[in-house]
Amino acid sequence: MKHFIIIFSVFSLIACQDKKAEMVHAEVKQPIAIVIHGGAGTILKENMTDSLEQAYLSILDQAVSKGYQMLENEKSSLDVVEEVVKILEDSPLFNAGKGAVFTNDGKHELDAAIMDGSNQKAGAVAGLTRIKNPISLARLVMEKSEHVMMIGQGAEIFAEAHGIEFVNQDYFYTKERFEGLKKAQEEDRIMLDHHKKSKDEKFGTVGCVALDKNGTIAAATSTGGMTNKKFGRVGDVPIIGAGTYAKNKVCGVSATGWGEFFIRNVVAYDIAAQIMYQSKSLQEAAKHTIFEKVGKMGGDGGIIAIDDQGNIAMVFNTAGMYRASINNDKKKYIGIYKD
Amino acid sequence: MKHFIIIFSVFSLIACQDKKAEMVHAEVKQPIAIVIHGGAGTILKENMTDSLEQAYLSILDQAVSKGYQMLENEKSSLDVVEEVVKILEDSPLFNAGKGAVFTNDGKHELDAAIMDGSNQKAGAVAGLTRIKNPISLARLVMEKSEHVMMIGQGAEIFAEAHGIEFVNQDYFYTKERFEGLKKAQEEDRIMLDHHKKSKDEKFGTVGCVALDKNGTIAAATSTGGMTNKKFGRVGDVPIIGAGTYAKNKVCGVSATGWGEFFIRNVVAYDIAAQIMYQSKSLQEAAKHTIFEKVGKMGGDGGIIAIDDQGNIAMVFNTAGMYRASINNDKKKYIGIYKD
Repeated sequence: MKHFIIIFSVFSLIACQDKKAEMVHAEVKQPIAIVIHGGAGTILKENMTDSLEQAYLSILDQAVSKGYQMLENEKSSLDVVEEVVKILEDSPLFNAGKGAVFTNDGKHELDAAIMDGSNQKAGAVAGLTRIKNPISLARLVMEKSEHVMMIGQGAEIFAEAHGIEFVNQDYFYTKERFEGLKKAQEEDRIMLDHHKKSKDEKFGTVGCVALDKNGTIAAATSTGGMTNKKFGRVGDVPIIGAGTYAKNKVCGVSATGWGEFFIRNVVAYDIAAQIMYQSKSLQEAAKHTIFEKVGKMGGDGGIIAIDDQGNIAMVFNTAGMYRASINNDKKKYIGIYKD
Repeated sequence: MKHFIIIFSVFSLIACQDKKAEMVHAEVKQPIAIVIHGGAGTILKENMTDSLEQAYLSILDQAVSKGYQMLENEKSSLDVVEEVVKILEDSPLFNAGKGAVFTNDGKHELDAAIMDGSNQKAGAVAGLTRIKNPISLARLVMEKSEHVMMIGQGAEIFAEAHGIEFVNQDYFYTKERFEGLKKAQEEDRIMLDHHKKSKDEKFGTVGCVALDKNGTIAAATSTGGMTNKKFGRVGDVPIIGAGTYAKNKVCGVSATGWGEFFIRNVVAYDIAAQIMYQSKSLQEAAKHTIFEKVGKMGGDGGIIAIDDQGNIAMVFNTAGMYRASINNDKKKYIGIYKD
């Protein structure tokens, strides 16, 4: 009898523990999260009109909410980042797609990249002149070619074969960006423009990172580059590891800033490497890269990132960064200036 | 008297230790070292004629010896890697400069990158069609522009303004590469060619990493890309962090291989990151990246690298890699196949 009681107790204990494990398992659902940016730079309240500020807040809200809704509907993070970046590309407020800045010779050259954290597949395009949504071409390069990166006319020949939407250069025109070019040329300098009011405003780029219900992290970035840029200059955006990176169980990153410094510091991958190799938190890693590396070298800009737990980082060393996020608790954040 | 002896002994001991420390300091001179590669791939002894093998060994010897001599003469590692890569570009045996492979439409498109470990400045060019020595244009981009990366015609307009040597496309022609293109097109596949004898021979690229008397590490890489490539495809070579990276007190890396896998794994910077963040040795870090990351993902190729102590790594997961090195003890190594 004594033995029976002991055996029964042990079984009960095991059963109870199993139950507990089950409950814990049920509680720890895969979190979802999304974060977006619309460029970092000298974005100051005093240079902003109320209506322009409202327009930025509204499009950021619209884009991040759309993405979160897709995640709740179990869309893949890859679908989400592409769709959200397309919304930002289509808005003339940002320096990507419609509203891209002008090159030195009065044209538009667009770059974009996308990465799938589940398999580290990536697609990147640079020097596009006729593609309405560069991010969609980047995804096609990733999914429909054996390559990661295609540039210039070659990339557009590939695009033609895949039925992607073409536009002429007039499509990208906005009065604000054209005035930005004229101003930059008057000042005879290369201006990394975001909008036109402040002398050193710079760094327009859009990006999105998302974590979906399968635990897959995807990252996407798109840009028109620098106002008045020459010589087929390419910044960090289409450079996998610099402007864009994603790896499941580590993090996804999209950057915006002075591209040259972001390439030289391999910014997006440097953040991932600190998490992988030093077990740093996402926030610690991102701060180290932006402040101790990019900043100390004289560069500026920012990043958005999400780790595998759905933690969100929005780190920048500029006056502002257009940004928005929604975490797993549905908590929405929208910001323009430093907090 | 007893006290005097003790004090005297202590002073002698201290003086002696100081002397010893001085001697140790004098002995630990900054080491110098150089390593080069001429591409990795299915390079098998049975597919190689004696005279071709001799030609490879001879040019590898010539290039690495020239570089080491420059280091001994206190030239900067930046001058060394540029000069050595130019020698390899000018040789028709390698897929860079003269001897570059053909694109799908019978042309040549060349990519190159260079990086200065003392300040992480970098220059990269892609899609060049008329530049004799792409590595020299990469260096000009680094030193004479505010940019890191320039592509296509834009890069060549920049080149014109800086008096760099232009050639027409015929210059790059070699019979072997043209036959390689025809073969690839017959097989209707994209061939990452190195030379033409074996069905899956691939990955021609040249590179050099050097450590100079000031402790500065520089890295340079140059390539014609993939035989039969289309759509303005760009591989890992001009991607800072993927095919090329250098940082003093850490390491310099130049890669050669299936570029897409090298981009997706941010190969060159991943090696540096393991040294910085995990205190791994250069050899351990390089093996981890090439075998555990690139290899397990299905990619192949190799890297050459040097750390701040002058340790040299030549790691590849292919049948062979054209390679040579000379370390601080003047020990020369030249190899083609697996050891």
